[in-house]
Amino acid sequence: MPERLVVIGGDAAGMSAASQARRRRKPADLEIVAFERGHFTSYSACGIPYWIGGLVADRDALIARSPETFRAEHDIDVRLRHEVIGIDLDRREVLVRNVDTGTESREWFDQLMYAAGATPRKPPWARVDARGIFGVQTLDDGTALRAWLDADPGPRHAVVVGGGYIGVEMAEAMIQRDLTVTLVEQGDQPMSTVDPDMGVLVRDSMCQLGIDIRTGCTVTGLTVRDGRLSAVETTDGTLPADLVVVSTGVRPNSRLAADAGLPIGVTGGIRVDLQMRVLGADRVWAAGDCVETVHRLTGQPVHVPLGTHANKQGRVAGLNIGGGYATFPGVIGTAVTRVCDLEVARTGLLEREAEDAGYQYVSTRIESTNRAGYFPGAKSMTVKLIAERRSGQLLGAQIVGRSEAAKRIDALAVALWNYMTVDEMAGLDLGYAPPYAPVWDPVLIAARKAVDAIHAG
Amino acid sequence: MPERLVVIGGDAAGMSAASQARRRRKPADLEIVAFERGHFTSYSACGIPYWIGGLVADRDALIARSPETFRAEHDIDVRLRHEVIGIDLDRREVLVRNVDTGTESREWFDQLMYAAGATPRKPPWARVDARGIFGVQTLDDGTALRAWLDADPGPRHAVVVGGGYIGVEMAEAMIQRDLTVTLVEQGDQPMSTVDPDMGVLVRDSMCQLGIDIRTGCTVTGLTVRDGRLSAVETTDGTLPADLVVVSTGVRPNSRLAADAGLPIGVTGGIRVDLQMRVLGADRVWAAGDCVETVHRLTGQPVHVPLGTHANKQGRVAGLNIGGGYATFPGVIGTAVTRVCDLEVARTGLLEREAEDAGYQYVSTRIESTNRAGYFPGAKSMTVKLIAERRSGQLLGAQIVGRSEAAKRIDALAVALWNYMTVDEMAGLDLGYAPPYAPVWDPVLIAARKAVDAIHAG
Repeated sequence: MPERLVVIGGDAAGMSAASQARRRRKPADLEIVAFERGHFTSYSACGIPYWIGGLVADRDALIARSPETFRAEHDIDVRLRHEVIGIDLDRREVLVRNVDTGTESREWFDQLMYAAGATPRKPPWARVDARGIFGVQTLDDGTALRAWLDADPGPRHAVVVGGGYIGVEMAEAMIQRDLTVTLVEQGDQPMSTVDPDMGVLVRDSMCQLGIDIRTGCTVTGLTVRDGRLSAVETTDGTLPADLVVVSTGVRPNSRLAADAGLPIGVTGGIRVDLQMRVLGADRVWAAGDCVETVHRLTGQPVHVPLGTHANKQGRVAGLNIGGGYATFPGVIGTAVTRVCDLEVARTGLLEREAEDAGYQYVSTRIESTNRAGYFPGAKSMTVKLIAERRSGQLLGAQIVGRSEAAKRIDALAVALWNYMTVDEMAGLDLGYAPPYAPVWDPVLIAARKAVDAIHAG
Repeated sequence: MPERLVVIGGDAAGMSAASQARRRRKPADLEIVAFERGHFTSYSACGIPYWIGGLVADRDALIARSPETFRAEHDIDVRLRHEVIGIDLDRREVLVRNVDTGTESREWFDQLMYAAGATPRKPPWARVDARGIFGVQTLDDGTALRAWLDADPGPRHAVVVGGGYIGVEMAEAMIQRDLTVTLVEQGDQPMSTVDPDMGVLVRDSMCQLGIDIRTGCTVTGLTVRDGRLSAVETTDGTLPADLVVVSTGVRPNSRLAADAGLPIGVTGGIRVDLQMRVLGADRVWAAGDCVETVHRLTGQPVHVPLGTHANKQGRVAGLNIGGGYATFPGVIGTAVTRVCDLEVARTGLLEREAEDAGYQYVSTRIESTNRAGYFPGAKSMTVKLIAERRSGQLLGAQIVGRSEAAKRIDALAVALWNYMTVDEMAGLDLGYAPPYAPVWDPVLIAARKAVDAIHAG
């Protein structure tokens, strides 16, 4: 009889794990059953704002692989609308509820892959039963929001609460749908995922697009009329609204794991070893937005819910379940996004994060261009570096630019990953040709400026 | 009395050195005189093809700083049309000829900066005195070519000899000027700066543009009528032509240095230490296309004439002349270019270079896209990796793509610089968002494929 792998969660981490395990172990050796409470598998959650905004025309384009594909091509039994509601590690069973019928059943496993993702941090005011209130965590969320937008008459006034990546991307999507948009952010700056001096560039660009930005502003409640949202109450006054997007962050969806006695870390994520095996558990694995990982610079546990990590971690877990050997080396906080006509990127630590980690640092900022200044299409870009005060080790980098800017973060990310100093970086052999860079690439100019600051300090 | 720095050559390396030295030492402490035999200083030689082709409208846009700027803002005495024709290290004098008047004079120095650049490898058949024969090494060359193109009636049939970066860029420029273009290349493939399996992609793209490519073809002579070029004779027959571009490579312009007894390496370039000091010489420095440097992977001396190295080396020399401390760490062979609608990039070693260096390797190739597949503007890209057979250390990478492809080489270059293995690279935390990458960046997919090949081998 084959071993049986049960996968909890049919998105990036879970299905990557399932696919990798299947590549190495045939159905006669390993049966794979995946339970997903939603309607979809393996979709690009990061793509939802672009579908909402209309840039991506077809929802199905966001779905990498359907349950049918998994079943037919990989012999993976994916059961949609099935939610795992309990784990019994001693009996090696999960309790599963059919979301549509309410029927519950027990399913046995030898190996368990926990990939339940993240749960929106829903503020108390958002726990209201009314139409017009949306999250954007899942493709089901996105589908509901899109239906609301496409209704006739559709909504006209949107309020987006929370100015992180998703909030900013959703604000832009709403503008593209011709709604008036107000972005409500508790902090001093939207795009708090970069330092304030870089965030202000993003803010300017959002304002130019017509987004009304309210910073230092908190939502206090919602006004509902006839079961529909009619306004958002804030510390900055009443904002009429027939649509609110709640993008106030997520937390690891680790409750079931905790209830089963699996170890939960300080971030709320499940604790795993390098192979993505749950610490101290027998043949139980976890990956994706529900786990915590380690930041390679600070050595601290962090929770970084990003599709790219979920895919990598899922692959690692699946390789190991399949009898191979792979490890996940941790993260350094790289992220990129597009806001209006701006490209925004970061890697490593922000200033406050560097401080919290105990680093003393210098930070420098330069202006340059994506191409040779004389080349058609040359656009400006700002590069900020944060380097350890004494050694000059790169601790963080941020880029805001208009074109061909964001992915320059990768060279900086690899430098940071390898603990390079800004001195060493100034000598790097990067690609140069007029269509792609000034003769000194912005990355090199930034490194030179940082070198000067280190030696002056 | 101030010390006196004499600079031989007023382009990237020489003027970077002069500027850096000036930043640290005021005129009362250091007098700086630079001799340049041409009409221009500090221009982008790499930009010449784009000006010839019409993409860059204004020649002066290629000039970063004019002699007037150097004089007025930096107190650097730049003397154009002055060629240094001899160096006397014992008397610490150079012999200088005014190119226009023929007058010769002696100029003393304390410190000497040798930055005479490179000289075209002119084949015997090109040493003919006729109109219609052009190099593209200097802005003076470019100016002459442009005048020939702009004449009325202008030329109609161009032959470009040599299929390296410059040859390929010039072929494209000639097409943009509505000439018929034949590219003659001795080897099997134009763009021999990448492996043949990648070069074939470039060849296809050039053919589609209408460039007639003759590989395995050698020029045997030129036909001149009334002092004008009328045809190029090749092993492949007679090619009617009223314009020939000779882009058959360059060699270090180190003759004067050799005559003065300075050490010349196996590549023909001047030998320097880490600070760009000429080996064994007293207060004599060299930088740019006239020196040889070290390849960080093979440990072998190499001659890599590229503006980006010239700028870096010149800066290092200037900092040291100025009393600071900087070193040039060597190169790893990174280069990017645009050919028609293709972006072409490389870093590290090609297959034959890896073999010559004594490595055993595996090479792998993957296809991916620059953006999420569903995102508007997603275009294909091919990434090839070469990794050491046993350790998996990255030895080389090549990319050919249609958009947002070439500069991905930088992440690979930094990985290679840091001696990463493809195993380590598969875990890198690179930027992901749908407008910029699939959830697995092509760089990561390439690393995964290489990992599989290493472990299979």
